[in-house]
Amino acid sequence: MTNQKSTQIFGYPSWIYKAFSSGDGKTYALRRVEGFRLRDPKDIMVVQRWKKVSNANMVTLYDAFTTTRFQDSSIIFVYAYHPLSKTLADEHFGPNPRYLPPRHPQGGPAVPEPVLWSYMVQIANALRTIHGSGLAARVIDSSKILLTSKMRIRLNCCGMMDVIHPDGQRIIQEHQQDDIVQFGRLILCIACNTLAAAHSPHKSMEYVAKYYSADVKNAIMYLMGVIQQPNIPPKSMDEFISKYAFSYMANNLDSALQYEDTLESELCRELENARLVRLLSKFGFINERPEFDHDRNWSESGDRYFIKLFRDYVFHSVDEHGMPVVDMAHVLSCLNKLDSGVDEKVMLVSRDEQNCFIVSYKEIKRAIDTAFMDLTKTQRR
Amino acid sequence: MTNQKSTQIFGYPSWIYKAFSSGDGKTYALRRVEGFRLRDPKDIMVVQRWKKVSNANMVTLYDAFTTTRFQDSSIIFVYAYHPLSKTLADEHFGPNPRYLPPRHPQGGPAVPEPVLWSYMVQIANALRTIHGSGLAARVIDSSKILLTSKMRIRLNCCGMMDVIHPDGQRIIQEHQQDDIVQFGRLILCIACNTLAAAHSPHKSMEYVAKYYSADVKNAIMYLMGVIQQPNIPPKSMDEFISKYAFSYMANNLDSALQYEDTLESELCRELENARLVRLLSKFGFINERPEFDHDRNWSESGDRYFIKLFRDYVFHSVDEHGMPVVDMAHVLSCLNKLDSGVDEKVMLVSRDEQNCFIVSYKEIKRAIDTAFMDLTKTQRR
Repeated sequence: MTNQKSTQIFGYPSWIYKAFSSGDGKTYALRRVEGFRLRDPKDIMVVQRWKKVSNANMVTLYDAFTTTRFQDSSIIFVYAYHPLSKTLADEHFGPNPRYLPPRHPQGGPAVPEPVLWSYMVQIANALRTIHGSGLAARVIDSSKILLTSKMRIRLNCCGMMDVIHPDGQRIIQEHQQDDIVQFGRLILCIACNTLAAAHSPHKSMEYVAKYYSADVKNAIMYLMGVIQQPNIPPKSMDEFISKYAFSYMANNLDSALQYEDTLESELCRELENARLVRLLSKFGFINERPEFDHDRNWSESGDRYFIKLFRDYVFHSVDEHGMPVVDMAHVLSCLNKLDSGVDEKVMLVSRDEQNCFIVSYKEIKRAIDTAFMDLTKTQRR
Repeated sequence: MTNQKSTQIFGYPSWIYKAFSSGDGKTYALRRVEGFRLRDPKDIMVVQRWKKVSNANMVTLYDAFTTTRFQDSSIIFVYAYHPLSKTLADEHFGPNPRYLPPRHPQGGPAVPEPVLWSYMVQIANALRTIHGSGLAARVIDSSKILLTSKMRIRLNCCGMMDVIHPDGQRIIQEHQQDDIVQFGRLILCIACNTLAAAHSPHKSMEYVAKYYSADVKNAIMYLMGVIQQPNIPPKSMDEFISKYAFSYMANNLDSALQYEDTLESELCRELENARLVRLLSKFGFINERPEFDHDRNWSESGDRYFIKLFRDYVFHSVDEHGMPVVDMAHVLSCLNKLDSGVDEKVMLVSRDEQNCFIVSYKEIKRAIDTAFMDLTKTQRR
């Protein structure tokens, strides 16, 4: 993460640092607000409430504390660290935006409709949890929303405004309604592919009506409050989802579950590798130990001799012309059989080709375990 | 998978087999319907449409063909194979059900409400896709719904009824409405924790009203058509979700995304292992090759000598008493540095302790790559 300084949103210079906790060894993102002093120590208490809010579409806030370590009075907010993330502002409004307007005026919108719906469903998901916890995000800005892997977005900096600008005058419901309007503005700007869209909402809505489905138009109008009338109940994310977003949410749920399947099957395959690393390391520890070079008990007899010959069988086979065979499939198949200790037998030939042994993978596995145990035993003594 | 034979649902004996495809090497679940003859070859064409339907909450149908390989006329349906799965019938109504009625009458329902909602959201997700493709599941039965990892359920046997009982008399909408009623009955039985619940729906609904929220009651009533009146439009999964299930669907989406995060971070950690297996195998291929035992060019000079000494450094270090050090952390740290080819230097000492070399991980990495390339080159010749 590069250090970034900005005063736009919080009214103070703020910095981001990547930090390793000496407590749990994990990585965190620290956001430092420079030159800030707590007016009332109670203001920081709200962080205790935020710590309990967990949602897949927000960056978790873990802690906040004031410090003078930077030779000033600063407050530090400790957030979850998401490597390789960029902001929605970078993605859509940065110097190298992801979506460029089509070359032909009839070419459709710059940003595809499924992208808009994916953002809407995810932000609605985050706000639903936040509002449901009796809190408000208070910052829904493209520069404060992280984009991580595969279209996942996360509201960032939640809780900071509550500490820096406690604003005890307004009740939480007002902040929540503000969140929803900000949400609408953000989607309008992304749909029109320019941050200026929020300044001329009528013209921008015309663009939306022309290039997107009526669902998108109605959703943005609901969020921005265009269709809100006096004496109607406040807007809510549940109403938004049930009226406008439910079918897109169902699509998102299905893709999330299908992606889960892919990840699970990849993980299964990779867990095999962890076993193989342990097994290959045992070979490494056991074979050719210099200190046992002349100890025939260790390496040239019985069990350990089999291990050595098996190593040759796995890695050092040659073809009919005596040329090395480099075959990872053979290696993996041998190691997997060894790891499961199957009853299948294998013929091991000594290097001078004078001796030949028939042993099962099961026996070799036992031999390796014994040899490895001997090694660790000597260590413990 | 154990072979199972049942005639209840399909009216024919049916069997399940686990099979490996000789085409793509993958595992499939074959469902064989015994003694079935196609009346009209066109009946099997519907499978082409099912093949295109993909949803995280159904078992994908890949193919169907008739065969006489079993010394009878059988039809085989080829489905995705989901290892370690059981059926909802096993889970809820089997000899060892997961949920037992509480011991005290005031103890609440046997099956917790979140379980019911998770099933409803998932079945709605599957039916939404199936009905959206102009098809109907036609079997929504606890014995034909698979339960795989972590509460995931999948409608099974989709498409079979369309082939076995084509039933051209009824239009697809009727089958879809039937799906929805079957769906409601299934949830009613699970809620009441007995398959008998569907036989006395009024009494069962009283139980539901007593032990579950009004949301559950209304959802089941909608599905079972109790609140359906003449001249109203047919029920649909979209209506069901937007009226009853949207907030539970949002919860499911959030859990799915959070689980995705867990899987991704585990996968990142495990992917390291694949690299290490390759690296350790290269050591295996290069070191102590018997055919080069007496070829000083191969093993005892320059590059390859470093590789051997490095192997000793990684695996064969000893403590101050000359006892073996078995330290996986040391192994992993060395291998990771080697794999990234860092500039850090390491001191390698020959076995007779007469020589000492200072080389960087970068140089050793280059040496290993060269040696390994030489090996594969000889193979290609």
